[in-house]
Amino acid sequence: MKKLKCAVLGATGAAGQQFVEATKDHPWFETTGLYASERSAGKKYCDAASWIEEGEIPEYARDIVVKNVTEIEKDIQQYDVVLSALPSDLAKIVEEKCAKEKPVISTASAYRYDADVPVLVPEVNYGHIPLIEQQKKRGWKGFVVPGPNCTTVGLVVSLKPIIDEFGIKNVFMTSLQALSGAGYPGVPSLDILDNVIPFIGGEEGKVEKETLKILGKINSEGVENAPLKVSCTCTRVHVKDGHMETVFVETEKPCSAEGYKAAIAKFNEKCRKEFGDLPSYPKDAEAIVVKEEENRPQPKRDRSIGDGMSTIVGRIRSDQIFSNGIKYVVLSHNTKKGAAKGGMLGLEYLVKKGYVK
Amino acid sequence: MKKLKCAVLGATGAAGQQFVEATKDHPWFETTGLYASERSAGKKYCDAASWIEEGEIPEYARDIVVKNVTEIEKDIQQYDVVLSALPSDLAKIVEEKCAKEKPVISTASAYRYDADVPVLVPEVNYGHIPLIEQQKKRGWKGFVVPGPNCTTVGLVVSLKPIIDEFGIKNVFMTSLQALSGAGYPGVPSLDILDNVIPFIGGEEGKVEKETLKILGKINSEGVENAPLKVSCTCTRVHVKDGHMETVFVETEKPCSAEGYKAAIAKFNEKCRKEFGDLPSYPKDAEAIVVKEEENRPQPKRDRSIGDGMSTIVGRIRSDQIFSNGIKYVVLSHNTKKGAAKGGMLGLEYLVKKGYVK
Amino acid sequence: MKKLKCAVLGATGAAGQQFVEATKDHPWFETTGLYASERSAGKKYCDAASWIEEGEIPEYARDIVVKNVTEIEKDIQQYDVVLSALPSDLAKIVEEKCAKEKPVISTASAYRYDADVPVLVPEVNYGHIPLIEQQKKRGWKGFVVPGPNCTTVGLVVSLKPIIDEFGIKNVFMTSLQALSGAGYPGVPSLDILDNVIPFIGGEEGKVEKETLKILGKINSEGVENAPLKVSCTCTRVHVKDGHMETVFVETEKPCSAEGYKAAIAKFNEKCRKEFGDLPSYPKDAEAIVVKEEENRPQPKRDRSIGDGMSTIVGRIRSDQIFSNGIKYVVLSHNTKKGAAKGGMLGLEYLVKKGYVK
Amino acid sequence: MKKLKCAVLGATGAAGQQFVEATKDHPWFETTGLYASERSAGKKYCDAASWIEEGEIPEYARDIVVKNVTEIEKDIQQYDVVLSALPSDLAKIVEEKCAKEKPVISTASAYRYDADVPVLVPEVNYGHIPLIEQQKKRGWKGFVVPGPNCTTVGLVVSLKPIIDEFGIKNVFMTSLQALSGAGYPGVPSLDILDNVIPFIGGEEGKVEKETLKILGKINSEGVENAPLKVSCTCTRVHVKDGHMETVFVETEKPCSAEGYKAAIAKFNEKCRKEFGDLPSYPKDAEAIVVKEEENRPQPKRDRSIGDGMSTIVGRIRSDQIFSNGIKYVVLSHNTKKGAAKGGMLGLEYLVKKGYVK
Repeated sequence: MKKLKCAVLGATGAAGQQFVEATKDHPWFETTGLYASERSAGKKYCDAASWIEEGEIPEYARDIVVKNVTEIEKDIQQYDVVLSALPSDLAKIVEEKCAKEKPVISTASAYRYDADVPVLVPEVNYGHIPLIEQQKKRGWKGFVVPGPNCTTVGLVVSLKPIIDEFGIKNVFMTSLQALSGAGYPGVPSLDILDNVIPFIGGEEGKVEKETLKILGKINSEGVENAPLKVSCTCTRVHVKDGHMETVFVETEKPCSAEGYKAAIAKFNEKCRKEFGDLPSYPKDAEAIVVKEEENRPQPKRDRSIGDGMSTIVGRIRSDQIFSNGIKYVVLSHNTKKGAAKGGMLGLEYLVKKGYVK
Repeated sequence: MKKLKCAVLGATGAAGQQFVEATKDHPWFETTGLYASERSAGKKYCDAASWIEEGEIPEYARDIVVKNVTEIEKDIQQYDVVLSALPSDLAKIVEEKCAKEKPVISTASAYRYDADVPVLVPEVNYGHIPLIEQQKKRGWKGFVVPGPNCTTVGLVVSLKPIIDEFGIKNVFMTSLQALSGAGYPGVPSLDILDNVIPFIGGEEGKVEKETLKILGKINSEGVENAPLKVSCTCTRVHVKDGHMETVFVETEKPCSAEGYKAAIAKFNEKCRKEFGDLPSYPKDAEAIVVKEEENRPQPKRDRSIGDGMSTIVGRIRSDQIFSNGIKYVVLSHNTKKGAAKGGMLGLEYLVKKGYVK
Repeated sequence: MKKLKCAVLGATGAAGQQFVEATKDHPWFETTGLYASERSAGKKYCDAASWIEEGEIPEYARDIVVKNVTEIEKDIQQYDVVLSALPSDLAKIVEEKCAKEKPVISTASAYRYDADVPVLVPEVNYGHIPLIEQQKKRGWKGFVVPGPNCTTVGLVVSLKPIIDEFGIKNVFMTSLQALSGAGYPGVPSLDILDNVIPFIGGEEGKVEKETLKILGKINSEGVENAPLKVSCTCTRVHVKDGHMETVFVETEKPCSAEGYKAAIAKFNEKCRKEFGDLPSYPKDAEAIVVKEEENRPQPKRDRSIGDGMSTIVGRIRSDQIFSNGIKYVVLSHNTKKGAAKGGMLGLEYLVKKGYVK
Repeated sequence: MKKLKCAVLGATGAAGQQFVEATKDHPWFETTGLYASERSAGKKYCDAASWIEEGEIPEYARDIVVKNVTEIEKDIQQYDVVLSALPSDLAKIVEEKCAKEKPVISTASAYRYDADVPVLVPEVNYGHIPLIEQQKKRGWKGFVVPGPNCTTVGLVVSLKPIIDEFGIKNVFMTSLQALSGAGYPGVPSLDILDNVIPFIGGEEGKVEKETLKILGKINSEGVENAPLKVSCTCTRVHVKDGHMETVFVETEKPCSAEGYKAAIAKFNEKCRKEFGDLPSYPKDAEAIVVKEEENRPQPKRDRSIGDGMSTIVGRIRSDQIFSNGIKYVVLSHNTKKGAAKGGMLGLEYLVKKGYVK
């Protein structure tokens, strides 16, 4: 199979670097164009990008000359798909220009809340994909498919088996988020050494809003939000990667710890069937991995399960407060499943279903 | 005034060291006896104790020869009060022997759940103090007054103005606890560097139980638990001191952010009147300090307010889930207000009220 | 005594904040003017400065309206002394303007290497102070007295007793420097979590150069460098405050561990006599504190000795490589002794000696 | 090829776990027996060992029942080679018993300083291997080959090209060592958060002694130490893995930065020829990797180069103090190259050379 050609927008930033990494040695895609701000334009990628992750800039990308993102419009026909890691305000403008011609996979929030745009977490709402047909009304030949905020991802994956089997009324969530979620340079070391910062600008609202949409149902108008409520407090902790969340769920029907685990098993089976053949789907682990040890999941020890694409759930207990309820801890790798690599899984599924070719 | 003489039990451990520190230069008390395990007995305190806190062992304590804790029974008449930082199983036995003769202030959990024992957080339940009269039925001339688990302290102080003004139905709490809460050597560095541990043995049950008792009312049988429910997930984070908690509260009556703040102001005024003359009560800060900045309280920046004796509340928001509800973040210094120094405030109040002399 | 009025230049930055802190409740000085960049000008200090240290902005400074640093020239007569924490390039210009009229104490490097400028570490080179007379040739009524780089401070203080008693030929130094040395926002947390950065731009050259000048002798031309050589490797470690250095010294004469300690005792006695009456000189500790424990000094445990104004030396051992040599570890508080508060000590001495009035 | 059977002694400790990991999927070896203290004996390995590293206990080892290390003597004929990670005092006794029959590869220091025992770092002193013939005089059919202290490894590898090309007179080394070097539980988090500990018991003496032996020449009596002197200060920093060292070297002949790099290139070529076919030799990297960036090597970013088997050297500069000298920073992965995996490389070479079969 000839590989599909990708342009990465915002290629020098943290999320952009993750797209560059995620398309390295990918069997279906290759990144052939890198776009960033004027400041980087004209430089080799290895000179323009201050590589954040351990290891080195992928060999293939080192010598690609970065272009100004303003040039993507005229270059667009060179690519089969656009991977956007632009800041949200810029994404609003540039992603539209790209979507007129080609599919756009995005980590930006610019289009997340539009009625005809699915916020894709494949395991949870692949059923929303037909929504993108409605984007044709915008006069677009392509479309925009954003992923959610990285904090939303672990939450919605872990809630999906519950809503399907038991129904959900209310969710209380406290996040303990990793530093890499703030990009680079991000959080100053003096602010986080020996500290927790109990606030992340805009995060709580995003999670509360996106969760309802992702867990909702599509209809002819777009997405009908799931009929539940979510309340969050988001904090930043001294961890490099891996967003942990403590979750308390009030369910419609009784939900025991064993019941939740059974629902997870069913969910995993379905996911394996639907996505098991996709390159970015976890190989040696399930979509949701349940940890039975009382002190897990832990970011350092568990974030890389399934190469960062599994969602790890532990400390599953029934909740004594609700008549029907369950509580647990969930961990999701914010720069893998929660960002570019999660986007790649969605893209692979779109290829499989014929929306991208 | 002649200073009251104190014996510190478990003097070499983390909590014991805090009693040694808390009685340094205290205007009402002086520590004149130090008791620990057989291993330390016969050594000078400066040789027996591996001092954990910054700074040095208080000068007064350096050369005191540590005695075996088994000797406290025969030494008991030398002291006016016993400060116990014993492990809980040992506390069960030794505190009883001491209480037969003298008042015992304790950080151990051994007697916390007995009907005739108040779990004292003075600002919240000084009204429980008469309970100690019931301990005379045990044939004790003295009594035992333990403080709660360090994670309970910030929670009950922050809930008190709410329960008084608005009533409380349900509480969801997630803690982000400091390393010093685990004592010394405590948490291995390899376990917590770049990590969160989402479990602390026994902690959740203690908080869920103690909160109801402390917020309850006394009657002739002991304490009647407050009619509310508490559900917790406790985690350990990479912070030295200061337990942070995210709290979601369902109230009986509507409770706005402004309403909560007004209730706090009222609570502070009452506390200042009742405790303002006590040496360990915060001097330049109130019992509850409200931080208005959106990213506070933070352990590093705020734990030392009121010399670690204030409870810091921030991010006060009404909750969209409950018909009536409020959510916030609370911070309490676990080795000061949450341990020995908190015990000292209780002791000072007992002196003021004539229970200790 | 009427307090001398100070202007702080660069008041919103890390070093400037330290001057604001160091003049709080100072018996001899008060800060009455705050100057910073255009961006801060016109704002109250509490709105302009993002306060880095624990605790709050000093009450006295909160409501002072920050002025543009360009205005200091016309305001200069309102002040008795200028405290400059400007970036070095700006310091070059602005400090000159101020020095034409008034004494300037500076943490900037702009004038450090000029022949007629003493780099003042009072305990080490108060004998260099007469140099400032030579600045009159510049047509200045005032003068500039900078302190050294924060990494130089601990080194020169610890070397002074050695050079005086034993002579020094060569020094090998490796620093393990704190994050606060990089200012704010400074080092991104993603760069230093689970990491060491073995490079600090320009630092090694500064230490190697300044050490020779500070330990040198003055003559009619300025300072004659001390006849020794210094070779450094500077690293950044995951510590908030306190620069630690490992030092290997080849001496002229034999120098045992006991010999070094005796020289330190002599040095301390001299310092106590010369500086003991100055407000910023350590009260309960000596200029150099020797730690005998084998695992000290440690930044967290020892940096605050003498309220951050003592230099802590430990692990003193004779060196088996040199015919005559000594090795040790030294710790100095980089934002106290190594910055504004160290500058204040110098200023106090200049007052005592009649150079500032 | 039939795989050689290995017994791991001290299998539940940190170093033992690394042998279990290092023999997973090894093409030449398989671990078939696990031995530990009485406390672990009789338990499945997955129950006996608290797995320290990220990821899970290797599948093959989970259900192996751990035996008491006292049983190795009678089991010895079941194995082709013994991998010992015993504490040093126990190693003294048990390794002897094993060596009577079989080859023993060890991370313990028990035999390191015996004349007939090579301290093997293959790239540096594979020429010492014939020494093991002399162990026959002990009446042993097998032999003991220990690796050096983990802090010695990076130093001797980085010194080898220098001594070969330029000669070495003196070495000053300061280490910044990782927490995993202290084993598990190792360093308490309260001791190292926001701190450096400038002392590691016994470490400096080991490095100073082992370096001379490893860089020495063998003769009929054993090893003749290299004629140089080493002086060290060892510190512990807040890093999980990867020992960094700053090194100042006085050479016999002039040695420029370029000269050192050329010597490294020559060394790498020789190593590739001698060891390139061994499974544990780095695949995509050389024995010594030179980093040209001014702020490298860094533990987090560089420790995994060559899967932790490369030695990383950076900041190469000529030294201004010595007439002939060079200084640099070196990084070595202490739990890979510096422990079990380094031992495996030696073992593989012994197989290649026919000493183990």
